[in-house]
Parts: sequence; C-alpha cells; structure tokens
Amino acid sequence: MMDEFSFIETIKQSTYKQSTLIKGIGDDGAVFRNRSSDIVTCVDTFVESVHFSSKTMSFFHVGYKCLAVNISDLCAMGATPTFYLVSIVIPKSVTNEELTELYDGLHTIASNFRMDLIGGDTVSGEQLIITVTAIGYVPAPYARYRSDAKVGDYIFVTGTLGDAQAGLEILLHNLDVDHKEYFVTRHRMPKINVDFIKNLRTIKRMVLNDISDGLANELNEIAESSCKTLLIEDAKVPLHRYIKQFPKEKYEEWKYYAGEDFELVGTVAKKDWDTVVQCAEEHDITVTKIGEVIDDPREHGSVFMRKNNELIRLDKKGYRHQIGK
Amino acid sequence: MMDEFSFIETIKQSTYKQSTLIKGIGDDGAVFRNRSSDIVTCVDTFVESVHFSSKTMSFFHVGYKCLAVNISDLCAMGATPTFYLVSIVIPKSVTNEELTELYDGLHTIASNFRMDLIGGDTVSGEQLIITVTAIGYVPAPYARYRSDAKVGDYIFVTGTLGDAQAGLEILLHNLDVDHKEYFVTRHRMPKINVDFIKNLRTIKRMVLNDISDGLANELNEIAESSCKTLLIEDAKVPLHRYIKQFPKEKYEEWKYYAGEDFELVGTVAKKDWDTVVQCAEEHDITVTKIGEVIDDPREHGSVFMRKNNELIRLDKKGYRHQIGK
Repeated sequence: MMDEFSFIETIKQSTYKQSTLIKGIGDDGAVFRNRSSDIVTCVDTFVESVHFSSKTMSFFHVGYKCLAVNISDLCAMGATPTFYLVSIVIPKSVTNEELTELYDGLHTIASNFRMDLIGGDTVSGEQLIITVTAIGYVPAPYARYRSDAKVGDYIFVTGTLGDAQAGLEILLHNLDVDHKEYFVTRHRMPKINVDFIKNLRTIKRMVLNDISDGLANELNEIAESSCKTLLIEDAKVPLHRYIKQFPKEKYEEWKYYAGEDFELVGTVAKKDWDTVVQCAEEHDITVTKIGEVIDDPREHGSVFMRKNNELIRLDKKGYRHQIGK
Repeated sequence: MMDEFSFIETIKQSTYKQSTLIKGIGDDGAVFRNRSSDIVTCVDTFVESVHFSSKTMSFFHVGYKCLAVNISDLCAMGATPTFYLVSIVIPKSVTNEELTELYDGLHTIASNFRMDLIGGDTVSGEQLIITVTAIGYVPAPYARYRSDAKVGDYIFVTGTLGDAQAGLEILLHNLDVDHKEYFVTRHRMPKINVDFIKNLRTIKRMVLNDISDGLANELNEIAESSCKTLLIEDAKVPLHRYIKQFPKEKYEEWKYYAGEDFELVGTVAKKDWDTVVQCAEEHDITVTKIGEVIDDPREHGSVFMRKNNELIRLDKKGYRHQIGK
C-alpha cells in the first residue's frame, strides 16, 4: 500500500483553476477569498460494501461518483462547485494502481467542473471509505431552499427516474437486458447539470432538491420544510422508455423509492415555468411538470399522488444503501 | 445501532452561534456569507485502532479530539474557527449511548469556540471513523503561511513538547508515574489557544505551524516552504518539569519526533518578538524562543539543531500513528 502520508501529495494539483483560491494544499489549511458570493458546503461519505463494491464499480467510478454526489448537492442549493476536500481510508489490499484509478475518477469530474482539490487526509483502515467535502459559490439571493415552495408553484423533475436503480440491479444480479450500458452508466456516473442551474439565476425564487434518496423522500422534505401540500400526478412522473422492459411493479416502485438518480426535483412559480423549460432546452435537458403545490391547511407538510383518480399519500420511506460485498 | 439517517438529526443544533450562517443543517448544503474575511478549510480523519482505541480514549475524548485537531490547524493558519462538518462511520457494535458520548465531546469543544455544526453524514461500516472538516475566518492579510519565514526571524514554540506522547505511553502500557492525569489529558484533550492567535493580529507577518507530527517535521516544513535554513538550540526546546521522570533518551526523542502535542511553532521578526511574549502572557501561555532563521545559501530548506556545540541536521522523520486495538 502507498504510504499514508504520500497519497495526498501525489494527487496535489500543480495549478489551480479557481481565481478565488489564495492557498491550496501544502499548509495547515487552504485559504480562499470571495467577497461577492455566498458559500455553500456539503459532505458525503462513501463506504465499500455499503455504497459500492467491486461488483458494481471500478475504482475510477468510485472516485467519480463520490464527487458527483456532492456536486449534485451543491447544484440543488443553486451553487456552482468550486472546491473539494477528500479524506480516504485505505485498506492494505488496495494497490497503488487502484488508488491512482480512484484519483483519475475524482480528477476527471473535478476537471469537468473546474473544481480544485484544496485539502485531504489519507489514513489506513479496514474498509475503503471516501469522504468528500464540497464547496460552492452562489450569488445572493439565488440559493435554492427546500422551504421556499409557495401555493400555486409547479412541481417539476429533470430527466427520468429509476434508471440508476435499474443499473444497480443489472450489476448486482448480472441481468441481461437491452441498453445495459445506459442504465449502468446512470448508476456509476450520474450526470450533473451545473450550467443549467447557473442559467436559472434569472428566476428569483425556486426550490431545488436532488433526488438522492428517491422522489417520494425529496418531495416530503420540500413539503415539510415549506409547510405546504404537494400534489403529484402519477402518470406524469417521467420514465425512460428503456425501463419499460423491466417488470412494471419494479419500475413503478423505483420511480418513487429508488435512490441515486441525482436528477433534480423543484418547484417554481407558474409565471417562471416557461423560463425553466426554455433553459432546459438550451442545455438539452428534459424537464417535466409533475404536479402543483396546493392549498390544503389540514395537510400541511404532506405529499399526495393522484393515480387513476385516486389520491394516495406518498410516504417518506427513503432509499437505503445496502450493497454487500 | 442508531439508524444511520437519524444520528445527524439528533445532533443538529436548534440554534446557531455564528451570525454569518444563513442556512445550517436541513437542506442539501449549508450556506454562509462573509464579505470581509478570507475563508480557511481543513480536514482530518480519525480511525479506530490507528488514532485511538478504547484503551486510550473514551467516546467523549474521540469526539473532543477529532474537532480539536482541526481547530489546531485553523489556528496554525491564523484563523478563528467558525463551522464544522462531521462524517461518522459507525460499526454495529457502537451503542446509542456511546454515540451520544462522542457527540458530547464534539459539542463541548465546539461550544467552547462558538463553532456551529453545519453538515454531516452518518453511515454504517466496520470501523469507527470520524472525518471532520473545519472552516474558519481570517481577515486579510493575517493568514499565517509556512512560506513566510525570513532571515533573522526568531523561531518560537508555545508550551512544552513530548507531553502528549508521554500520555499515550502511560495509557498504552499502564505506566505508573507521577502527574499521570496531566500527561493523559495532554494526549486526550489538546488545549488550543484561539484567542492568543486572534490577538496576534497586530503583527503583519508571522509563520505558524501546529505541532501535530513532531517539532522536527514541522520545522522542516517551514524551512522547505520558505526556502530558508532554520537553526535550533537544543537546550532551549521547552520540556515540562514533570516529563523528566521518564528516561532521558525517551523525552529527548519525544520533543522532536512525538506527535499530537498541538502546540504551535512559528517564526516572527525580531522587532515583533516582544509583542508575542506580551500577548502570550495575557493568555497565560508560555512562548519560548528556540532558534533563528539564518542565512545559509548552501542549505536552503534545512533544519539544524545545535547540541553541545555540535551542529546536527534535524531530519523530517515524522510521527506515525499506530495504536492497535
């Protein structure tokens, strides 16, 4: 195994992309200066045999995805990603080549978004564990809070739902299906739409959540934070045409309760809906209106789904990671 | 074990102390706004049976120390701690009571320094692992870089060295010595002098490093970053009088190569030395001048130690964590 002190040295950038960075890796801490934007931070931890295994991901994918999920969180706050810090716990079994591959994954997605690595720690341990802290900038007042939904808002999602779960099932059970690569890539390398989020900054108020733990869970978070009732039309929730080859009861479950699609769900005033649609078109993203924020004082904080003219309460039951070895 | 989703909820603060915080825990990320200071970040990971074990630390101490080491890094950058994010990997064997105790440790030191917890992640895993990302503020131009040492600077350290290592040895080998509690506390609950650092902001240029991996290692980092030669007087390196009960060859080794004292080593212009001494007195801290930055163009980036009129090169050989179960 590589010396625990040297890994961060080997992945240290020789040049930095962000002009607000004053001091990168190489002191007791990094220093940056931003006098105009607000600063957003988030952290996510990736554990071997909980979030991934050698069956589901290569080291490259592990590196790629653990930064992707943080970028997704920043986007859901309306922020542009700028910096990240990474802490890696490395078991003895991991080779230098595998570590380098993991770094390639991190570096590839970081480069795509011009993010700089500004800190890290590497220690030895029994399981491979990666913790990424990501930092982004958002000019006030464009931070997107869950608590900002208002009655009359349209509820929308980007892309299609359940695809990442389909990809995971394919990997775990060696399923032989059509368009395998599409689903597997959705699981391993979530696409994050940073520019889309940036260009939505003409809209003053909007709610965004990234769909990491299932649409039902994210909708409930918006409903609770905003103290509003959310009403969804089941038939509108977008599914990819490829997913229909799976059993219906599967993908109908996945669209609400499967994790890691890293699409966005949000709410926006009716008057701003056209702007969202237009912006999505420019970035080659599909957005779908799936419901409305309604006025129901008895049920503040709840989510309902209309299916075949029946109203069903959509519970929070979130996605639980459990991959195993 | 506690539900992995609920731990961060249970430790979420109901009120926040920092006025620059806009949004704490409860969205996809936290948001803060600081238009006047520079922002410093650092990250540190604590692994069971590498950095601590049940023999050396209670859960309270683990929580306390993993934030303390980050506060120490911020101080060494000249920054005032403000926020932290914590990611915890929790094995099944850990009880709710133990987790609560760990949190008490985190919370105790966070409160002392008015730090707010603004993000976190909890996941299950095989080993107890805590990763803390800390954020601090420093008004320009008072960030303290390793690269700023100048010829003629005095080199100084705070406190006494080797005490934390003595504490660790006492714990690992059940040593029966006098003033046991003093040493053990030095290992478990490092004292960080945030106000001292703050009040030194009348001095425009100074170098600071926290002594986490041994004085020899930190001095070499300053020498290398500044491209200067550092000359230390061995007899001046401060030892606590209690430590002299240990074998001489032990504490003579510890003062240069033992880790985790979390004292500060720095350099400062001669003209500013009195200010440092006075400021230390006000905060009841001892500072000791141990050497000078000298002009030796053949040996830029090196550290020498004078002992019995002999010059000895002080190598970088850093402290390696290895505690075992």
